[in-house]
Amino acid sequence: MSTNVHPVLQQFHDMLTKMKSYEEALGLMQWDLRTGAPRKGAEQRAHAIGALSADLFSLSVSPEMGNCLDELEQPGVFESLSQADRKMVKDARKEYNRSRLIPPKLHQEYVVLTSHAETLWEDAKKNGDYESFKPYLRDIVAKTQQFIDYWGVQDTRYDTLLDAYEPDMTVAKLDSIFGQLRDQLVPLVQSVQASGKQPAADFLFQEFPIEGQKAISHYLLKEIGYDFDAGRLDESVHPFAIGLNPGDVRITTHYKTHDMADAIFSSLHEGGHALYEQNINVKYAGTPLASGTSMGIHESQSRFWENLIGRSRAFWSRYYGQVQQTFPSQLGQVTSEMVYRAVNRVEPSLIRIEADEVTYNLHIIIRYEMEKMLFNEGLSVDDLPDVWNDKYESYLGVRPKHAGEGVLQDVHWSGGGFGYFPSYSLGNMYAAQFMHALRQGMPDVEDRIARGELLAIKEWLTERIYQHGKLLTPAEIVMQVTGEALNPQYLVDYLSAKMKDVYSL
Amino acid sequence: MSTNVHPVLQQFHDMLTKMKSYEEALGLMQWDLRTGAPRKGAEQRAHAIGALSADLFSLSVSPEMGNCLDELEQPGVFESLSQADRKMVKDARKEYNRSRLIPPKLHQEYVVLTSHAETLWEDAKKNGDYESFKPYLRDIVAKTQQFIDYWGVQDTRYDTLLDAYEPDMTVAKLDSIFGQLRDQLVPLVQSVQASGKQPAADFLFQEFPIEGQKAISHYLLKEIGYDFDAGRLDESVHPFAIGLNPGDVRITTHYKTHDMADAIFSSLHEGGHALYEQNINVKYAGTPLASGTSMGIHESQSRFWENLIGRSRAFWSRYYGQVQQTFPSQLGQVTSEMVYRAVNRVEPSLIRIEADEVTYNLHIIIRYEMEKMLFNEGLSVDDLPDVWNDKYESYLGVRPKHAGEGVLQDVHWSGGGFGYFPSYSLGNMYAAQFMHALRQGMPDVEDRIARGELLAIKEWLTERIYQHGKLLTPAEIVMQVTGEALNPQYLVDYLSAKMKDVYSL
Repeated sequence: MSTNVHPVLQQFHDMLTKMKSYEEALGLMQWDLRTGAPRKGAEQRAHAIGALSADLFSLSVSPEMGNCLDELEQPGVFESLSQADRKMVKDARKEYNRSRLIPPKLHQEYVVLTSHAETLWEDAKKNGDYESFKPYLRDIVAKTQQFIDYWGVQDTRYDTLLDAYEPDMTVAKLDSIFGQLRDQLVPLVQSVQASGKQPAADFLFQEFPIEGQKAISHYLLKEIGYDFDAGRLDESVHPFAIGLNPGDVRITTHYKTHDMADAIFSSLHEGGHALYEQNINVKYAGTPLASGTSMGIHESQSRFWENLIGRSRAFWSRYYGQVQQTFPSQLGQVTSEMVYRAVNRVEPSLIRIEADEVTYNLHIIIRYEMEKMLFNEGLSVDDLPDVWNDKYESYLGVRPKHAGEGVLQDVHWSGGGFGYFPSYSLGNMYAAQFMHALRQGMPDVEDRIARGELLAIKEWLTERIYQHGKLLTPAEIVMQVTGEALNPQYLVDYLSAKMKDVYSL
Repeated sequence: MSTNVHPVLQQFHDMLTKMKSYEEALGLMQWDLRTGAPRKGAEQRAHAIGALSADLFSLSVSPEMGNCLDELEQPGVFESLSQADRKMVKDARKEYNRSRLIPPKLHQEYVVLTSHAETLWEDAKKNGDYESFKPYLRDIVAKTQQFIDYWGVQDTRYDTLLDAYEPDMTVAKLDSIFGQLRDQLVPLVQSVQASGKQPAADFLFQEFPIEGQKAISHYLLKEIGYDFDAGRLDESVHPFAIGLNPGDVRITTHYKTHDMADAIFSSLHEGGHALYEQNINVKYAGTPLASGTSMGIHESQSRFWENLIGRSRAFWSRYYGQVQQTFPSQLGQVTSEMVYRAVNRVEPSLIRIEADEVTYNLHIIIRYEMEKMLFNEGLSVDDLPDVWNDKYESYLGVRPKHAGEGVLQDVHWSGGGFGYFPSYSLGNMYAAQFMHALRQGMPDVEDRIARGELLAIKEWLTERIYQHGKLLTPAEIVMQVTGEALNPQYLVDYLSAKMKDVYSL
C-alpha cells in the first residue's frame, strides 16, 4: 500500500522481538547454571526457567501469532514481503504448528525436568552412576514420546525428532548417507590399523599448567577472529557456545592439566560456533534470523575450525611456535610436524569428544542407531547401558568400564536433545564440502593458513554463510556455496588423503 | 471454609510466584551486566531487560491482580488469612496502587534508560566526565518527576520517593533524626580534629597482591557464615549484593593493590546483606517475603558486619593473624592494635564508600539535602556538580577535583535510586541499636568475637531478623528486637565511645 510497514507485519515483528528477549533471558539463565551458579539455588532457578519458558511458549502459540500468520500468508500479501520477512513467517508457522499441539502444562513440566536433569547429570557422570540418572532419562524419553504423538508421525517416529534440528532431514536419507560413510570409513580405519604404524603422542600428555593453556586458547581465539568484546570464555564440564545476541556470543572450554591439545581443539570448536553467531548481519539483531540456520550447518563451522583448519599441517606450522614458547621445558624437543601427526592419530576410543576425525563418525552412528531403537523400536532405558557397551565393543573394539565413560558421557540426552547427534556428522560432511569450495576460490589457502591469515578465511565464510543467519536453508547454503547438494564423498576424500599422508598408506 | 486453599488465594500465590521468576531473570541479567557481560551485547540486553520488566510490571497491575486483592481484602476474608498472606496482600496492594498510576510505556522507557545509563556511568566516572552523563541524568530526573506527579504528593515531593525504600519514613522525621545526628557528630568530629592525634595508617597502603586479598575475603566471608554453596563472590566497579533466591545470593567486591583493608570491608559489607537474604526461612522461597523488609534494615546488616563487628578491637585481635600470615613481609612489624586504630581513623574525605564511620553520615546528609533540592526545590541537573562540590567544601572541608571523585562517584542515581541514600544512615542507627540489644542478651559478645564465634552472632540475628524476610515491617523488627522505636542516640553513644578509645578524648 505504501512505504509504511503493514500494521500486521509490525505486530508480527513486535511479537518476535519480545520472544527474542525471553530467549536471551533463558539463555543467560542456562549459561549461568552451567558456568558457576551456586548449587543451592538450582531448584528455584528451575522454577524460574519453567515459568519464563511457559510464557515464551504461550507467545509462540498465541491467537495473536496465529492471526498474524494467517494474514501474512494471504496470497498477494506473502509475495509482497521481503525475503527476511517471508523466512520469518515460514519459520514461525512451523514453530506454531509444532508447538500448539503440545499442552502448555506438559511443555512446562518438560522444561523443569530437563533443567533439573542437566544439573543431576553432572554428578551422575562424575560418579559413573547411571541408576541415579535413569529415572530422569526415562521421564525425558516418555515425555518426548508424548511430543511425537502430539506432533504426528510421517515416516518413522524418529523422523519427527530429526526435523527439529535439520529441516528436511529424514531417516531414509540418513540411512543412505551414513551407509556410504560407514562403507568407506570402516575399510579406511582397518587399513590404518593394518599399517601397524602409530605416530608418537606421549609428549602431548605431559603436565601443562592451566594458566599457560588459558593463554593459548585466548590467543588462538583472537587469531581466528573471535571478538572478546562480543563474548567471553569460561569453563564448564561440557564445553558449549551460546549466542544471547550477536554482540554477546559466549563460549566455554575445559582444561586438562595433562593434555596439551584438548583445550585447544575445544576452544576452536566452540569458537567456530561463535564466529557464525557473531558475524550475522546486525540488521537481524533482535529477530529470529539472528541465529544459525540449522544444527548441521552450525556444526560444520565448529568442525571446520577445529579440524579442517586446526588439525592441518599449515596451522601447526604457523602456531606451534607459540605453544612451544609457552611450555619450553615440556616441548623443547618436539617439532610441529610431530604435533601435526600426533593430533591426527586414528585410534578407536570410548569418548566421542576425544575421538579422532575418522572414528568420530562411528560414535555418531552408534548414537543415531540407539536413538532410532529408543523411539522406533521400543528399546528400554533400562537396557541402554548394555546396548551402548555392546555397540562400542562391536564397532570400535572398546568397552566402557562405567557409565561415566559410556552412556552418560554426553550432556545431550539430559536436555532432551534426541535427534541432535546426526548434526555432528552432517557438520563434518558440510565442512569438508565447504573446504573444497574454499580451495577452488582461494587456491593458496594452505599458504595463507601458514602465514596466519585466518581472518581472510573468516571473511570468506562470513560473506557466504555467517552473515545470512537463518535467512537461507541448509540446502540453499550448501548449493549456493559449493554449487551442489550435500555429498559425503568430500569428507571421505579429505580423510583418505590425510590418512595417506599421516600413515603413508 | 476448609483446609483447602481458597481458590483466589491460590491464584494470588501463582501470580506472585510467576513475578518472582521474572525478578530472578531480571536480577541475573543485571548481575551479569555488572560482572562481565561483553560490552557489544549491552544494547540488545537493555532491550531484553526492558521487555521483561514491562511484562513484570503488567503482571503487578493486571486486572487479575486487582481482582485478587479486592477479594482477599474483603472483611472476613482478610482476617482469616495467615500472617504471611496478610503481609503479601498489603505489599501487593501498595505496589498495585503505586504502579497502576504509571503508564506502561513510560515505565518501559525508564527501565531501558536506566539500564543504558548504568553502563555509561561506569565510563563517565572513570573519565570524570559529567557532561557525557548529564543528559541521561536529566532524563532520569525528569521521568522520576513524572512518576511523582502520577503517584501524588502528600507532604513534599521527595516524601513520595522516600516511601519506596523505607516504608513510613518522611522528610519531617528525617529532618529531625538527621538533625540530632548532625548536632552531636559535628562536635565529635571537631574534638577528634582538635586532639591533634592521628593513628598511623601508612602500613595499610603498601602493595598487597590481589591473590592474597582474594583469599582473605573468602576466608572472612566463610567465618561470618556466608554460604558459598548458596552464592558466589565476583568483582565489579561498585560492589553490590543481589539475592536471586535464598539459595543464590551473590556478592561482589573490588580489590585495590595498594589497600589492605578496602576489600575486606567491602566483602564484610556485602556479606552482611547476603547473610540476611541467605537466612530467610525457606518456606518463603519463591514468594515476595523472600527478601529484606526495607533498605534501611538491609543496610543495618551490611553496616553491622562491616563496622560493628569488622571494625571492633575484638575482631582484629582474632583475625589479624591470618592477614599477617598472608602478607608477612608487609605486616611483620604491624600489630593488631595498630590495625584496629588505623581502620578507625576519622578524617573528612571525598569518597563516601571510603569514609570513616563518623563522617560517613555527613556524606549521606549531603546527598539527602541534594535530593531534596532536586525534587522539592527545583535544583537543575546543570548545577549539580557545583552544589555538590560546595557542600563537600562546607561540611567536610574537602573539594572534588573532578566529577569522578564527586557527583559521579555513586551508581545510585544512574539507576534512578533517588530516596535510597538515607537508608545508609538509617542502617547505621539500626545497627548500633541492634548491637546494644545483642550486648544485653549476650554480655560476653566481645569475648566471643575474640574467639572467632561469629556464627553465634549470625544465629542471634537469624532468629530475630533474617528468618522473617519481609514478614515484619522495619518498625516491628526494631521494636521486637530492641524493645523501643528507632533511637539515634545508640549510634552517637557507640561512636563517641569509640572515638574516646581511639583518640583518648
